[in-house]
Amino acid sequence: MHSDSATSTAHLPIGVFDSGVGGLTVLRALKKALPHEDFLYLGDTARLPYGTKSGATVARYALQTTRVLVDQGIKLLVIACNTASSVALPGLAEAYPGLPVVGVIEPGARACCARAPHGRIAVIATNGTVRGAAYQTAILRHRPEATIATRSTQLFVALAEEGWTHGPEVEAVAERYLAPLMAEFPEGGPDCLVLGCTHFPAMAETIRKVLPEGVCLVDSAETTAESVAEELAERGLLKPRANSGDGSGSVRFFATDDPERFARVGEIFLGTPLAVGDVTLVDL
Amino acid sequence: MHSDSATSTAHLPIGVFDSGVGGLTVLRALKKALPHEDFLYLGDTARLPYGTKSGATVARYALQTTRVLVDQGIKLLVIACNTASSVALPGLAEAYPGLPVVGVIEPGARACCARAPHGRIAVIATNGTVRGAAYQTAILRHRPEATIATRSTQLFVALAEEGWTHGPEVEAVAERYLAPLMAEFPEGGPDCLVLGCTHFPAMAETIRKVLPEGVCLVDSAETTAESVAEELAERGLLKPRANSGDGSGSVRFFATDDPERFARVGEIFLGTPLAVGDVTLVDL
Repeated sequence: MHSDSATSTAHLPIGVFDSGVGGLTVLRALKKALPHEDFLYLGDTARLPYGTKSGATVARYALQTTRVLVDQGIKLLVIACNTASSVALPGLAEAYPGLPVVGVIEPGARACCARAPHGRIAVIATNGTVRGAAYQTAILRHRPEATIATRSTQLFVALAEEGWTHGPEVEAVAERYLAPLMAEFPEGGPDCLVLGCTHFPAMAETIRKVLPEGVCLVDSAETTAESVAEELAERGLLKPRANSGDGSGSVRFFATDDPERFARVGEIFLGTPLAVGDVTLVDL
Repeated sequence: MHSDSATSTAHLPIGVFDSGVGGLTVLRALKKALPHEDFLYLGDTARLPYGTKSGATVARYALQTTRVLVDQGIKLLVIACNTASSVALPGLAEAYPGLPVVGVIEPGARACCARAPHGRIAVIATNGTVRGAAYQTAILRHRPEATIATRSTQLFVALAEEGWTHGPEVEAVAERYLAPLMAEFPEGGPDCLVLGCTHFPAMAETIRKVLPEGVCLVDSAETTAESVAEELAERGLLKPRANSGDGSGSVRFFATDDPERFARVGEIFLGTPLAVGDVTLVDL
């Protein structure tokens, strides 16, 4: 579909949204995979966390945040939030039929299926994602014989946002969550553990410490970035090189509350400095 | 001020609002102190937590939730949320000049001053309450010579909502937060520790375990209930005995998201069973 109208939006930025700062782990992977592209990132910090809220409420929030990004002009939307990906995709596709939308669940499901030789897959996520069973559904589409166990590890969100990603207390919390989950699999544990929330990569080192050896961690950020690159290429929407200037694209950040906190906590997830002046407050 | 117009609202319920379920610890104390009164409780669960949000946003939310309660008819409003008490009282007083409003910070400050023989007071609260310095201001009004140290223990909110109020992991988290706070006082620690968030009473037993002996815990729920009883008596707004029926008042619950979760998590804080059928969903 390399139509003229598609080509005409190729110069626009990619829109990325999340309930807050966790989605910055996805933005980081996107910037690495697509360094020439421009990005708009919106964190709906006024209404986070999405993970404890009902599906209907999260779907409504997703429509409102997407409206802000669409009004600014974007060529593709990334839902960098597992909870929103699990409940908001159908509503967004209906509201914006011309806009390509990529969530994080389908890429995460593909990635874990590729890394599960025995089809034994453990998933940790927020309450909302677990309740929606979106990972199970997506995984079973690829691997109908898979053995899947899921568990809500809601506290990892608060721990990561507090900057408490390491230390004996954090390991104790991880152990309390993960030991019963591991016990649901035969000796040796599952093949892999899916980090089904964009906050969780910040906890990866601690999580690894309490897992049995040989269980690999699957973070959907990288495979999501690959999906976005494929989608853009297929639709002829990669940024024209003539507009690429010196080669590195721009990022503009928006938050629905407290840019100071967004910048301070966001650094944990983005992995590079983030100044409060880079963040624009938007009211929804 | 026992005017006729005041007396005419005495039959109305008392409105109580919080960002979620933590304020149920205050409702519990209110029901105990004022068993004949009727209550409307509104938990703004769609937008919790307030503790990590900016003061301006929380003040706006407080006006919206109060509107719902005022439209139903209430004779007095209790802000059963420290964050909202610290930022929303002036705006509410302006918007509803005839409505008596009682927050939890002033009663909490009075209570800790009464229990601090050496004037050494530690306060734990959410990010938002700490940032606003409302406890320091209120305490210093009563005890200008007090030594006050405060610390945000934001994770206690997520722990309490997860139902993780006990266990070695929870003690480890409490220790990591409280040890540096205790170290800010001379040997023996402060006279008392104020639980400056309505979620924290659920963590009281664990908190007590990691405190030096002799440090007492101050929970503002009981003193808030006393303040409400005094305020009602002063204004002639206690419920007329003719309307009291068999003596025990009613409670109606409203939540802005997911009544099922409100009922399930709410029991932790209310201390008595709460059925999902008792909770009405309201949209703000």
